Amino acid sequence: MSAVPNTAADAPLVQVSREGPVVTLTLNRPAQFNALSEGLMAALQAELDQVAADDSARVVILAAAGKAFCAGHDLREMRADPSQEYYQTLFAQCAKMMLTIQRMPQPVIARVHGIATAAGCQLVAMCDLAVAADEAKFAVSGVNLGLFCSTPSVPLSRNVPRKTAFEMLVTGEFIDARTAAEKGLVNRAVPAAELDAEIARLAQLIAAKPPVAIAAGKDLFYRQLEMGVEAAYQLAGQTMACNMMEEPTLEGVQAFIEKRKPNW
Amino acid sequence: MSAVPNTAADAPLVQVSREGPVVTLTLNRPAQFNALSEGLMAALQAELDQVAADDSARVVILAAAGKAFCAGHDLREMRADPSQEYYQTLFAQCAKMMLTIQRMPQPVIARVHGIATAAGCQLVAMCDLAVAADEAKFAVSGVNLGLFCSTPSVPLSRNVPRKTAFEMLVTGEFIDARTAAEKGLVNRAVPAAELDAEIARLAQLIAAKPPVAIAAGKDLFYRQLEMGVEAAYQLAGQTMACNMMEEPTLEGVQAFIEKRKPNW
Amino acid sequence: MSAVPNTAADAPLVQVSREGPVVTLTLNRPAQFNALSEGLMAALQAELDQVAADDSARVVILAAAGKAFCAGHDLREMRADPSQEYYQTLFAQCAKMMLTIQRMPQPVIARVHGIATAAGCQLVAMCDLAVAADEAKFAVSGVNLGLFCSTPSVPLSRNVPRKTAFEMLVTGEFIDARTAAEKGLVNRAVPAAELDAEIARLAQLIAAKPPVAIAAGKDLFYRQLEMGVEAAYQLAGQTMACNMMEEPTLEGVQAFIEKRKPNW
Repeated sequence: MSAVPNTAADAPLVQVSREGPVVTLTLNRPAQFNALSEGLMAALQAELDQVAADDSARVVILAAAGKAFCAGHDLREMRADPSQEYYQTLFAQCAKMMLTIQRMPQPVIARVHGIATAAGCQLVAMCDLAVAADEAKFAVSGVNLGLFCSTPSVPLSRNVPRKTAFEMLVTGEFIDARTAAEKGLVNRAVPAAELDAEIARLAQLIAAKPPVAIAAGKDLFYRQLEMGVEAAYQLAGQTMACNMMEEPTLEGVQAFIEKRKPNW
Repeated sequence: MSAVPNTAADAPLVQVSREGPVVTLTLNRPAQFNALSEGLMAALQAELDQVAADDSARVVILAAAGKAFCAGHDLREMRADPSQEYYQTLFAQCAKMMLTIQRMPQPVIARVHGIATAAGCQLVAMCDLAVAADEAKFAVSGVNLGLFCSTPSVPLSRNVPRKTAFEMLVTGEFIDARTAAEKGLVNRAVPAAELDAEIARLAQLIAAKPPVAIAAGKDLFYRQLEMGVEAAYQLAGQTMACNMMEEPTLEGVQAFIEKRKPNW
Repeated sequence: MSAVPNTAADAPLVQVSREGPVVTLTLNRPAQFNALSEGLMAALQAELDQVAADDSARVVILAAAGKAFCAGHDLREMRADPSQEYYQTLFAQCAKMMLTIQRMPQPVIARVHGIATAAGCQLVAMCDLAVAADEAKFAVSGVNLGLFCSTPSVPLSRNVPRKTAFEMLVTGEFIDARTAAEKGLVNRAVPAAELDAEIARLAQLIAAKPPVAIAAGKDLFYRQLEMGVEAAYQLAGQTMACNMMEEPTLEGVQAFIEKRKPNW
C-alpha cells in the first residue's frame, strides 16, 4: 500500500498515491528524517486541502519515507532566522496544518515506523487513528534542547493520561510502541511486517461506510468533545437526525431490517 | 440478584425488583435484544424517575433479560416514519433518559452480558459503574448501516481514550470485555458465573454509605468534570463543607476518632 | 535522597533538604500518618511558596516520613469545631495549597510509599509526576465516614478514567500501586528499594533542562488543558515562539545542529 519513496532530487516533498478511495500521503524528506520544513508543511497542507475537497477520497494514510516517521520541525531552518515573529508564524502554519487533519471530512490514519519526535509525535497524536510498528518510538524531546514541546503538548495531552504526557514533556524520554498503545497515543502496535496489512484493513473498513456518515460523525466527534455533556447531546442528536435522513442511511437501515446487504 | 425475566405477553418492558436498598431494573424485550423502542425508553424513564424520588433506594442495577444487554435503538420502529422531526424528538427522548442516569442521586451500575451495541453501548457508558461478563462485547456499530453513532459517542468519548473511541465509531467493530475494562468503558470484566456476585458486592458497598454523601458527591463529580480546576475546587470545597455538617458525617468522623463503627 | 525524618518534639512539620537544584519537602507528622492538619498545610504552603520563588530550585520531591505517605485531613482537628464556615475555610486553604503545586514553576514529584488516602491521594494526583513503591495503596476513603471526597475528586478525575474514579469515590476501596500506574494516578510503581533511585533519576533528568523552558512549559501545559483545541494551539504557539528566543534555547538548538552538547 505505501509508496516506494521517490528520492530523486526533484521528488515531491509529499508523495501521493491512490488505491481506489484510499489516499496515501508520504512524507518524503527521508535524509532529514522527514523534518517538517516550511516546504514540507506547505506541501502537506496543499495535499490535505486537495483530499479534503475530493469527494471520492474516503480515507487518508499518513506515511513516511525512510528510516523515521518524522523528527519534528526542521531545526536548521528554524535557527537561520531567530525572530519571535518568524517563530510565531511558523508555529501558526504548523497548527493550521495539524488542525486541517482533524477538520477534514476523511479519517486520517498515521502509519508510524522508526521515530516520531516533537512535531512528529504531534502529527501522530493529531491523526484520528494511528498504528505503529512494534519498534517505533515516540518522544516530545524539544526540552532536551531547551525548547518545551508546547504545541505537541496540545494533542498529546488529549490522547494520553496527564502524568504520562507531563513526564514525556519534561524528560524528553522515548516511550516504545507498546506503551504508546497502552496509553492511547496509537490504536495498536504490530510487527513491522504486518503494519501495511493492518493499516489497509482499517482503511478498507472505513472506506466501506457511507462517506456522508463518516464526515458528519468525525465533525461531531471533535466538536462535542469540547462541550458540556448536555450541549454535546443536543448537537449529537441533531447530527444523528440529519444523518438518518440521508439516502444511504435509509437504505442501510432498510437492508438491516430485511437481512440483506445495503445497496450502496 | 437479577430478576428471572417475565416473558409473558403482558410483562412490563422494564422489570423492577428490590432487595432492601438495591433496586434492579431489567430491560425486558429479550426477543428484540432489548432494543430501545419508544415504549422501552418511556418505561425506563418512568422507573428511573421513580427510583430517583425514592429516598429508600440507594443504588440501582441496570440489567437485561435474555441473550443480550441491549442492541441499541429499535430500527424497525425508527424506519417506519422517516422524518427529521421524528428522529430529533426520538434522540432527545433518549438523551433525556441517558442524562437521568447521570443526574439521579443513586449510583447506577450496568450489569453487562452478551452484546451492548450502539445506544446499548451508550447506556453502559452513561452508567456510573459497569461490570461485564467476560464474554460480553461492545460496539458502536451504527456506522455499518450508514448511521454514525453520534449520541453514543458523547459518553463513549468521555469513558475511553480518544483514538479508541474514534476507531470503534468509524469501523463499527466489537471490542471484548477485557479491552473494555482496560480502556475504561467498564470497571472490570468477570466470569459470567461471578457477575451477579461482583455486582452485589459493589451495590452493598455503596448501599452501606450515608445516601446524603453519595448523592451530593455524585452530583458534584459530574459538575466539576465540566469546569476548570479552580472553579471545580471552589464547588467541591462548598460541597464538602456542607457534607461535613450532615448528621451521619459528624457521627462517622466521631466514630472514626473513637475507633468504633458509626451508629447510622 | 529523602531525608532521615527528624522526629524530635520541635521538628518542623515539613522538613526541607536540598541536593543541588533538587529540593525535597518531607511531610513530618509520622505518628499521625502525616495527616494534613492546619499547621502542616500552612507549613507546606510556606515551603512551596519559598521554592516557587527560588530560581536555583529546579525540581521538587514531595516525600513523607514514617509508615504512610499521607492519610488525608486531620479528622480530630476537623471534628473539634464543626461549623460550615470553618470547613469552607479549611478546604479553601487546602485547595490553595494543592493549586500552588500545579502553578509553581518547578515540576513536583510525589514519592509515594505506604498509604495515600483522601487528601493524601489528592496530593498525589495534584503532583505533576508520581512514583510509588510497589506496596503503596491509594484510596479516597472519606465516604466510609460519610464524607464524600469531593475535593480529592477534582484531581483524581483528571488523572484516571471516569468510572475508575467514581468507583474509588463511592466504595472507598483501595487500589494497589500497579493499578494506580495502569490507570494514570502515578507514572509507575517500583520496588520500594528502588524508589529513591527512580525518583532521583527523574529529578536529575528534569534538573538538567533549562528552567525557563520547564517553567513556561508547565504553565502552558495546565492552561491549554482547559481550552478548546484551537485556543490551546494559539497559546501554545505563542509560548513556544517566546521559548525559542531564550538564550539557552538558541544555544541548545545550535548545539544540536553542531552535534555537540549545549553550553548551558
